[in-house]
Amino acid sequence: MDRKWQLLGLGFVLGVTALCVSFIGGMYFQHQDARKRLQKIIQTDPYAYYVSPKIDEVTHDEADHRMKQIMKYGFPGLDDLRLYSDFVLSYDRRNRVAHWVCEHLQVDSIHPNRGRRGRNPYQPDLSVPSNFRSELTDYRRSGFDRGHLAAAGNHHLQQNHCEDTFFLTNIAPQIGQGFNRGAWNNLERYVRSLVHHFGSVFVCTGPLYKPKQRSGGKLSVEYEMIGLNMIAVPTHFFKVIIVESKVHLGKPYMEGYVMPNASIPDGLPLRSFLCDIREIEHYAGLKFFDGLRRSALFGSNYPSESQVFREFG
Amino acid sequence: MDRKWQLLGLGFVLGVTALCVSFIGGMYFQHQDARKRLQKIIQTDPYAYYVSPKIDEVTHDEADHRMKQIMKYGFPGLDDLRLYSDFVLSYDRRNRVAHWVCEHLQVDSIHPNRGRRGRNPYQPDLSVPSNFRSELTDYRRSGFDRGHLAAAGNHHLQQNHCEDTFFLTNIAPQIGQGFNRGAWNNLERYVRSLVHHFGSVFVCTGPLYKPKQRSGGKLSVEYEMIGLNMIAVPTHFFKVIIVESKVHLGKPYMEGYVMPNASIPDGLPLRSFLCDIREIEHYAGLKFFDGLRRSALFGSNYPSESQVFREFG
Repeated sequence: MDRKWQLLGLGFVLGVTALCVSFIGGMYFQHQDARKRLQKIIQTDPYAYYVSPKIDEVTHDEADHRMKQIMKYGFPGLDDLRLYSDFVLSYDRRNRVAHWVCEHLQVDSIHPNRGRRGRNPYQPDLSVPSNFRSELTDYRRSGFDRGHLAAAGNHHLQQNHCEDTFFLTNIAPQIGQGFNRGAWNNLERYVRSLVHHFGSVFVCTGPLYKPKQRSGGKLSVEYEMIGLNMIAVPTHFFKVIIVESKVHLGKPYMEGYVMPNASIPDGLPLRSFLCDIREIEHYAGLKFFDGLRRSALFGSNYPSESQVFREFG
Repeated sequence: MDRKWQLLGLGFVLGVTALCVSFIGGMYFQHQDARKRLQKIIQTDPYAYYVSPKIDEVTHDEADHRMKQIMKYGFPGLDDLRLYSDFVLSYDRRNRVAHWVCEHLQVDSIHPNRGRRGRNPYQPDLSVPSNFRSELTDYRRSGFDRGHLAAAGNHHLQQNHCEDTFFLTNIAPQIGQGFNRGAWNNLERYVRSLVHHFGSVFVCTGPLYKPKQRSGGKLSVEYEMIGLNMIAVPTHFFKVIIVESKVHLGKPYMEGYVMPNASIPDGLPLRSFLCDIREIEHYAGLKFFDGLRRSALFGSNYPSESQVFREFG
């Protein structure tokens, strides 16, 4: 009799344990399943990616994908985010020009022999609603170049990487002589030289609409609009550059440049266009590095003071 | 012997069933738990709410909360979303003025006796980073009124509803005489009369920066900026109004108004400010009703043609 009760007791304990294990197994299965489905969404939807740290509190999950690499230092803004094959862009529907374009450059992607442009590679991005879309006709006979924000020369790893930079969402009206084919081009080549020296460089590029002092001391913003779709002509363009250190645990360096959308005389050194990041943020309405304390994150608040990049200036 | 095997078989089947039930119970528990935690996030984070239809595919969930009521007809834009006690706002960090403010008005909320203003109720919203924040000093001696986007008179249900409308994120520089204290005020009173007649009205209000024709035929945008923080003075303001039908299954009506930020002569009828919604969308860079086909959603593309509201004109 005693033996029988013992066996029954053992059976009971084993049964309950099996039920518990099964219950936990069910939880685990459901959890993994939800994680997988959420990850799929997060990899293609920038907004889902942006809220994912909060969702992660629910799913305790992390995954690696291209968007996460490019946006390592945070989103400068959150208006109409668009993910392309090798860059991420925020589109300004009011001005029909991007707010910002973020790229992550490595030596592989700027290899000059890879990738080639087609004949007329510029094309409107049909995923933008027609009311906010810029078209090829808007630039025709406008007197402005179709200037790249993410430079075509930075995206040679795959054919489609380079092609994507010709979407008109990545294009802004730029003065040709002395800017797009002058100082701005020099700045782009300087960025690529940084990639060759340091290996990993993050670049964020965008337009500014800076106010001017009027008679009477009033400040006012003024900019032209071209074409039937009214594409804004920015008064300035900025580039914010983060160079990651080659040294293990070394802190990254940061620089900001602002150039007027105008014919800039030859021979002006790049360093004369250096600009305080906080000033760029104020005029652009953007926040770089997601509000992280710069002094904590970066080697120096204004690395432009350092001599590191002087040789490229 | 036969009996023993039968019992063993029955026990086996019962055991497996219990394990399955337990497994499914575990899945269900985990699912409910994740749902609850996601719901908490969604109710306070507008971005999480925006991506929630996709997350819902994972959690198969729906819940009711204030944000969902206010944003019933979709987000006009997604830049820097902010949830207040009785309205939702998108903030333009470049111009230090909202992109749009959405409200849902019912008879209860516009009851004139409820809620009272404090002495100096205007206050900066400290949740906006200082670099993008408008302050009381910016408006002082600027010559402009601190004009409400979501009108204070629309939010009398609770004390904090009314107080929230005095945050400077909901304020824009408006001409006082003939606009904020004239035509614009009439438009706000017209909206409240619609609420009294129809019961449920959605309003979206915001600034416009419209281009002007220059000599030479070029279009250009020009607007003033006031104060140390450079608050943009909009050239126009718009209101898009959706009136829900009282009839069961009746379609809602929609109207759009645009007024110049200027002294408007008395006696001009409201209908002279009626504007094509698509034109407002083009200048504001916003999309009302989330791209839903208007002809499918609304009784008429341009309900301004109808006689419904003429009596209030």
